[in-house]
Amino acid sequence: MAKVLVSQVDAVWLAERLHDWPDGSGPMYQRLAQAIERLVQAGEVQGGARLPAERLLSTELKVSRTTVAGAYELLADRRLVTRRHGSGTYVESVRTETPPPRESVLMRSLERNEIFDGLLDPPRELLDMRSAVIHDSPGLPQRALDAVGADVARAASLQGYVPAGLPALRAAIAARYTALGLPTEPGEVLVTSGAQQALALIAMLHVRPDDEVVTEALTHTGAIDLFVASGARLRTVPVGQQGADVDAIERVLTERPRLLYLIPSIHNPLGSVMPARERRRLASLLDEHPDLVVIADDTLADTYRDRRPPPPLGSYPGAHRVLHTGSLSKLIWGGLRVGWVRGPVPEIRRLARLKALTDLGSSIPSQLLAIRLMEEGEDFADDRRAMIAQRGRTLERALAHRLPSWTFDTPEGGLCLWIRLPGGSARELTMRAARHGVALAAGSIQSPQGHFSDHLRIPYSHSELVLTRAVDRLADAWEQHADPSPICELEDLRVVV
Amino acid sequence: MAKVLVSQVDAVWLAERLHDWPDGSGPMYQRLAQAIERLVQAGEVQGGARLPAERLLSTELKVSRTTVAGAYELLADRRLVTRRHGSGTYVESVRTETPPPRESVLMRSLERNEIFDGLLDPPRELLDMRSAVIHDSPGLPQRALDAVGADVARAASLQGYVPAGLPALRAAIAARYTALGLPTEPGEVLVTSGAQQALALIAMLHVRPDDEVVTEALTHTGAIDLFVASGARLRTVPVGQQGADVDAIERVLTERPRLLYLIPSIHNPLGSVMPARERRRLASLLDEHPDLVVIADDTLADTYRDRRPPPPLGSYPGAHRVLHTGSLSKLIWGGLRVGWVRGPVPEIRRLARLKALTDLGSSIPSQLLAIRLMEEGEDFADDRRAMIAQRGRTLERALAHRLPSWTFDTPEGGLCLWIRLPGGSARELTMRAARHGVALAAGSIQSPQGHFSDHLRIPYSHSELVLTRAVDRLADAWEQHADPSPICELEDLRVVV
Repeated sequence: MAKVLVSQVDAVWLAERLHDWPDGSGPMYQRLAQAIERLVQAGEVQGGARLPAERLLSTELKVSRTTVAGAYELLADRRLVTRRHGSGTYVESVRTETPPPRESVLMRSLERNEIFDGLLDPPRELLDMRSAVIHDSPGLPQRALDAVGADVARAASLQGYVPAGLPALRAAIAARYTALGLPTEPGEVLVTSGAQQALALIAMLHVRPDDEVVTEALTHTGAIDLFVASGARLRTVPVGQQGADVDAIERVLTERPRLLYLIPSIHNPLGSVMPARERRRLASLLDEHPDLVVIADDTLADTYRDRRPPPPLGSYPGAHRVLHTGSLSKLIWGGLRVGWVRGPVPEIRRLARLKALTDLGSSIPSQLLAIRLMEEGEDFADDRRAMIAQRGRTLERALAHRLPSWTFDTPEGGLCLWIRLPGGSARELTMRAARHGVALAAGSIQSPQGHFSDHLRIPYSHSELVLTRAVDRLADAWEQHADPSPICELEDLRVVV
Repeated sequence: MAKVLVSQVDAVWLAERLHDWPDGSGPMYQRLAQAIERLVQAGEVQGGARLPAERLLSTELKVSRTTVAGAYELLADRRLVTRRHGSGTYVESVRTETPPPRESVLMRSLERNEIFDGLLDPPRELLDMRSAVIHDSPGLPQRALDAVGADVARAASLQGYVPAGLPALRAAIAARYTALGLPTEPGEVLVTSGAQQALALIAMLHVRPDDEVVTEALTHTGAIDLFVASGARLRTVPVGQQGADVDAIERVLTERPRLLYLIPSIHNPLGSVMPARERRRLASLLDEHPDLVVIADDTLADTYRDRRPPPPLGSYPGAHRVLHTGSLSKLIWGGLRVGWVRGPVPEIRRLARLKALTDLGSSIPSQLLAIRLMEEGEDFADDRRAMIAQRGRTLERALAHRLPSWTFDTPEGGLCLWIRLPGGSARELTMRAARHGVALAAGSIQSPQGHFSDHLRIPYSHSELVLTRAVDRLADAWEQHADPSPICELEDLRVVV
């Protein structure tokens, strides 16, 4: 269950979550009270949190202050909130009698991520700007593809259950880390079905309900989902152009959380890189916390534009226990579903056992293809990087031209731009954008607390033609967005967003 | 944690679990008491269970009755057991203060399955007779293999994250169920990474700690592991040549368990089939339990020898909510890692979301290859069935010739024989067999209670040459096994078994 750990509930965030509050019958203040109650019952707003001031919430909801005051009074009558004079309105802790069934807890955690929705219901007539993964993968080397059939015929003389991964692929991934400055043996590598499975296995092995998990304040949305689904309580540390704030990590580690999840090499969604000096400081800090599980997610590390990021976190003194997760999805092709965990041998062995339990091992044809594609070497990788960077510049130029009020930093790499809107709610814009034929992810899904409601993530993993067209449509949507007339078919639109 | 629900602890089973009891220092009765205490603390023997009579355990452990009596007295002094005059020695309920860390619970559940061990540490110089999956897969059609490279090149123009599976593969699997008498739409099918992932997703969605899960008394070892890892309490119903005992299912369902897991079409390991009449009775019974999650595992259904099993359970009146799991691993190739769940659309959608969270979808190259291989049709499937049946007959003949005291029923299909030894412990035999170069799975790992300690499972998924050689080696091992001299290097051997 998503546990929002802010003690002050943000008015913009709450207004977004309350988007369907006027539905139903009865006086407006009653409907609003009921909608707030639903959020509390769902655990989205937790006991102890302070609700927004009446004035702020009434502005965001575009209702009179009397309506909000009435709703708060009603909630206080029903003992769902307490009002403290001069201080504010606080949510009481509620405890349902019986725990909700397993599937409802899980599904509620899954429903927050509209990127997954997009994958399950691919929009037919929309430009889908949600997943940051190369949509068309031109130029996979023909000689690698041709070899697959022969490789499979040979491999089919083996039984096919290889939970830890094909030895040759483990060796290739180990060689890659060694070349990056982190000497690695094949036994320190587990092949997974993409980096998402690598994270899922680590979460399954280590995170129990109510464990504390620390992530950056903006992070990979699939990781948020996994930790929330594990029942973890999420805490965050600030992240910026220098990566995660190491001082903040130092402070939070004194409370002995269970797991720390970071993206030091090309951050998702910021595209930033933690410098070598900060890595060194962080590593020596980790040395003091031997029971902490640390994940450094390298999923985007190979998609740098100009400068390769510093050596992997695990290569710095003190950080030898760090679990590095990674993937071929971003630089090569998501359809391979080839990722990995790199870590100490005993940990890799435990994760491999869990992988055997989970799916008995990854696809052999995919692993064979991955070996061939990795053999193509740095020239192939450079070509892919150049293609991605070119698409990034195309998106930047198109936005600068058509939507100059939208701001962003040029990232060091990755597959998306992290956009700040000059105002208003990004979620509302995504609804308008859907009407103009573009499916977009609101920035708030990359925040464990649902913050950054004025941000958007726009991937540049599509072809340049699609990118240009998408920006044209977004500019049209933005023009109407600036016009403050209300959206009428809001409910209808939610199904496609 | 494995919870043994027998109220009477079997002497043979306990002696096996105590195999390393003489390690350590101090008097023998003390060491034995400590070893029993360890099993209780590990949850392998539960509170309330009756320990074996002193005489029986002393015979199995080959020690004097005084040693066992001394151990029981010591445990009684320490209040770990109570002795009731004329009735026996009962384990007291123990409750550890703090729950063990997540990974230790999980890993303990994983360590019981030596088949997974074999996959993680493939024996170099042993004939591995543990996994029942075709070890060599000769004759994969060349035209299907040749097409893979071209298919991949085309598919790489899609982004590659398809959590529910490629539409064409979902349609092919749906058509297969429709042809078998269970009309199915593609939307009722989720593609998974093998049937093991199908089970894992269902367990993850539905099974919470302490939920009751009912399986057959012998069943797929990977399913036992999954349910145990979910924290479920396992109950069993008898299973035999007519499949699961429907009367026993009717009785156990009155206690409203959470999930029922059955293998009606070619049982693992029995190779038996539930007749149509029993399916009909079972289906109408399920109709009365709308909240029960029912899995019918079809993994082996296509490996019948002479007669195709009756239509899938879900096609009988009342059983429309049954989740069918299945796989291409057994008939085609385990390395594909292509399996599925077939069930109601809302359930498939929830499982697809969970699959997105878990790994974002299965390998596209594998799915493309699976489509091509399924297109090869019934002639190809008949060839594979004939090859498997031929191997089965080879193993049966070799055993009848070299090990006539071992008994088994000829199965209706599947990939293994379920062997009853004329006496002694199958686990001890597996240790001797390892010294003769054969890795074998003891039958007890297919029993949720660790019963059937005098049974072995021998797969006939190897080539006929390997099967003949394996039986020769087993015959040598058996000859020594009949000789009651003790095994000295028992500890050394455990690493390869």
